[in-house]
Order: sequence, then C-alpha cells, then structure tokens
Amino acid sequence: MEKNLQGHRPGSPVRSGIPEHGRIPKYYAVKARIAELLDELGEGGTLPTERDLAERYEVSRETVRQALRELLLEGRLRRSGRGTVVAGPKLEQPLSLASYTEGVRRQGRRPGRQLIGLEQFPCPPDLAPGIGAEPGEPVWHLERVLLADDERVGLESTYIRVARAPRLNADFQPDSSFYGYLRDSLGISFGEADEKLETVLATPREALLIGTPPALPMLLIHRFSRDQEGRPLERVRSLYRGDRFSFTTRLRAE
Amino acid sequence: MEKNLQGHRPGSPVRSGIPEHGRIPKYYAVKARIAELLDELGEGGTLPTERDLAERYEVSRETVRQALRELLLEGRLRRSGRGTVVAGPKLEQPLSLASYTEGVRRQGRRPGRQLIGLEQFPCPPDLAPGIGAEPGEPVWHLERVLLADDERVGLESTYIRVARAPRLNADFQPDSSFYGYLRDSLGISFGEADEKLETVLATPREALLIGTPPALPMLLIHRFSRDQEGRPLERVRSLYRGDRFSFTTRLRAE
Repeated sequence: MEKNLQGHRPGSPVRSGIPEHGRIPKYYAVKARIAELLDELGEGGTLPTERDLAERYEVSRETVRQALRELLLEGRLRRSGRGTVVAGPKLEQPLSLASYTEGVRRQGRRPGRQLIGLEQFPCPPDLAPGIGAEPGEPVWHLERVLLADDERVGLESTYIRVARAPRLNADFQPDSSFYGYLRDSLGISFGEADEKLETVLATPREALLIGTPPALPMLLIHRFSRDQEGRPLERVRSLYRGDRFSFTTRLRAE
Repeated sequence: MEKNLQGHRPGSPVRSGIPEHGRIPKYYAVKARIAELLDELGEGGTLPTERDLAERYEVSRETVRQALRELLLEGRLRRSGRGTVVAGPKLEQPLSLASYTEGVRRQGRRPGRQLIGLEQFPCPPDLAPGIGAEPGEPVWHLERVLLADDERVGLESTYIRVARAPRLNADFQPDSSFYGYLRDSLGISFGEADEKLETVLATPREALLIGTPPALPMLLIHRFSRDQEGRPLERVRSLYRGDRFSFTTRLRAE
C-alpha cells in the first residue's frame, strides 16, 4: 500500500506516530527507522552500536540515544550483557482469578517468585476493610519479586489477616503459588475479586528490586479478593514491567 | 504508626518508594515531600513555584523539576493556565462492552468526542481477519479524540467494514456514541469482545492530538468485538492518558 508524505499508510491507526502538521521530531524519525531495522533483525538480533546508528542515519549520538531510550521503555529492545538486542513480544497475562504462576505457565514460560519479605504488622485503618480485619489486628505482608524464566518482571505485595493463615511463615514455600497454598493447605477458594489497573512510574525501590531503569512505566494492579462465602480475603498490589507485560480479558454482553 | 529510618511504615506496600539500601535519590526525597504537600493542599490547590520549592527544600531547581515531572506524569499534578495545581483522582473506567460515553457518564463526567477523521480505505491484509473483511474490501477508519468535561483524555481509532455501516459518513453524528449508532440505526448488538491492555508512550502525533507532553505513559486498549451472531464486527484501538485513567474489572471464579 502506498505511503503518504508523512511516511505512513492511509487509514493507519492511532499508533502511527508522525504529526500531520509535518514537523517530525528528528529523534522520532530515527526511532521509526530503527523500528524498521528491528523488524529486519528479528527477536534476539543484536543492534548496531549507538555510534554506528548515528553514522547510518546522519544524526547525533544524543538523537540516537533518545530514540533507543523510548524503544527500551516500550519493550522493543532489551539490554543483554554488554549489548542491546531485539526483545520478544510482551507476555500476555489473562486478567483472571488464576494466579500469576498459572498465567505465565500457560504461555510456556517458567514462573518463579523470589521472597523479599514476610512480616507481621498491626493492620493500619486504611487497609482494614479491604481484608476484613479490625484495625490493629495482626496482618501478614508478603512481598515477592515475580520471575519469568529467571528474568525479574514484577513485584507483588499481598496482605492477609494472620488469623486467616496463621502458619504462613512456617508452612509456606515462598517460591511457590500463594493461591495454591491457600487452596491446598487451608481449603480457601476464591469467589471473586475487584481489580483496578493503572500505569505508574517505577519508584527507585521498585526499580532496584525488579532491576529496571528508574521511572520505567509499569502496570500496577490493585486486587481485592473475596472467598467463596463472599468474605474479604486479601489485598494484592502487583506491579509488572510495562515493557514486558500486557493483560487480556474477554468481555461479554451483560 | 511509627516510621522506620527510610521514612516509611512497616508493612508499607509496593508503592513506598525508598530503596532499602539507604541511598535515597535526592529528587525522590523531594518528590515524597511534595507529595505530602499535595495532600495538604487538596484537589485544585495551587502549587508554589519551582523557585519557592527549591528554597523550601534547599535543593536545586533542576532537582525540583525532576520531582515535578514525575508527579505530572503520574497525574498527581496538572497544568492549569500558567500554574500547576493538584489533580483529582484518576477516572475509573470499567472494562466492559459499554461504550466510553457510558463509562464516563457513570462517573458524573460529561463525555465528548471530537472527530479527527472518517475515511474509507482498502482493507490491508493484517486488519482483515479481525473485522471479518476480505483484503482490499473498503473499510472505515473513524478516529476521534475522547473528551471528559471538555478535557482531551484519549484517542480512539475504530475500523469496521463499509458493508456493515454503509452510510456512516452521512448518518452518524461524530460527536455521539458509535455503539449507540450501531444499535439504534443499524440494529447491531455486541456479543463479546477480546481486549488487550498495555502501557505505551505517546507518539508525537498522539501527544499533539491529545495535548499531552510527548512520551507520557498511556494506556492502550486493543479491542476485537463480535456481534451477537459471533461474527467479527470491529477493531478498536483506544489510547487513554495514563495520568488520568485507570480501568476496573470484576473477576469471578470459573
């Protein structure tokens, strides 16, 4: 299909990025050309150096750097050892009551979790209603890094009343599925959950734990779940690398 | 509740941003203090100038600027005329087959749409299966800016076969609900839709149309919907300002 003067096809979607007023930012024009190069190189292909790219496109290294920064933030590129390679597609995680573990496994990736901390603390008032606790009552905070094929891809904080899982610190394998533990060891099944998704910037602490550049756009999911009797069960805040994850859902007519 | 040395509470969630190794980036410490100030000022309150903030926190204006940049990208602040004010909470849009119009109205905001373009073009092969078209067959591309209370908050591209809505360019009011048009004028009802959500950076064209800073993190939703007979109906790409929107869903046990 023919391209118009701005270099994109008629009817091209939202994501074609060139403003119609004709002023194309220089870094963006370079980014578009590098994006084409990535398609040619294919997943895992090694990108030429910044200097080579600057020479090839006859722009400054700073311009190339800005284009590469965006391609990295968007997950088109990833750092690998000393070089930069073409990244694979984002992982598609279904929005469902199934756990992270099951979602990643379905895509043929190996899920993992790495314990950051498991601690008890007195429930603050703002947390209490969502997990069915009285303020001041002991609650667990379980914090884990989420892994896919040993790559750190997210960070998850779970809050649950100690009364619901009194032996969590003794019985639970922190690298295993928490939902599997609730089901198999405690006989607790989920009924439903309310989720809210938003995009946020990684804080310095999060960036450190997940190993991302600071201020990388992330997807944050807040979950409040209830058991099959409808009682509040847990609150979860899951943070996923925005460059590595997308979320899918099927909507039906009401 | 007492705070620990890093200035946050025990059991504080993912979103507490201070790395535990104790090296707090200076801009981030300033950001945390400005965030407290925003809570005190309340929605609509005017932020002191950069110079005032730099004096108050005894840091350079560049440090203040970095903190403000993140607070703006996160939607805690917004530009208003010549000043910067405390933003309200993000709009919560349900993930449902209901249209944008209905979702915004439910929150007491006034939805609007502004036409960017409505054009016919021959269906490219990659678009064809999702909308049930033959490659080359005429399709509509309807592109509109999404408004809430006259504020530009998103950008939406809809693709549908011309054969499904032959008089779209004559009958349809481009500032009204497209789903309302399909239902009321053409008798087409939705059966189900598959959606994929991800975070992306605004391209220069998108930033221009929506009036956002370039490279603002956005939420992009891809929708493929089917009618009640299960036939592919439309493809939609909706881009929402990441600083102004969150999405909610209720999950049920399968």
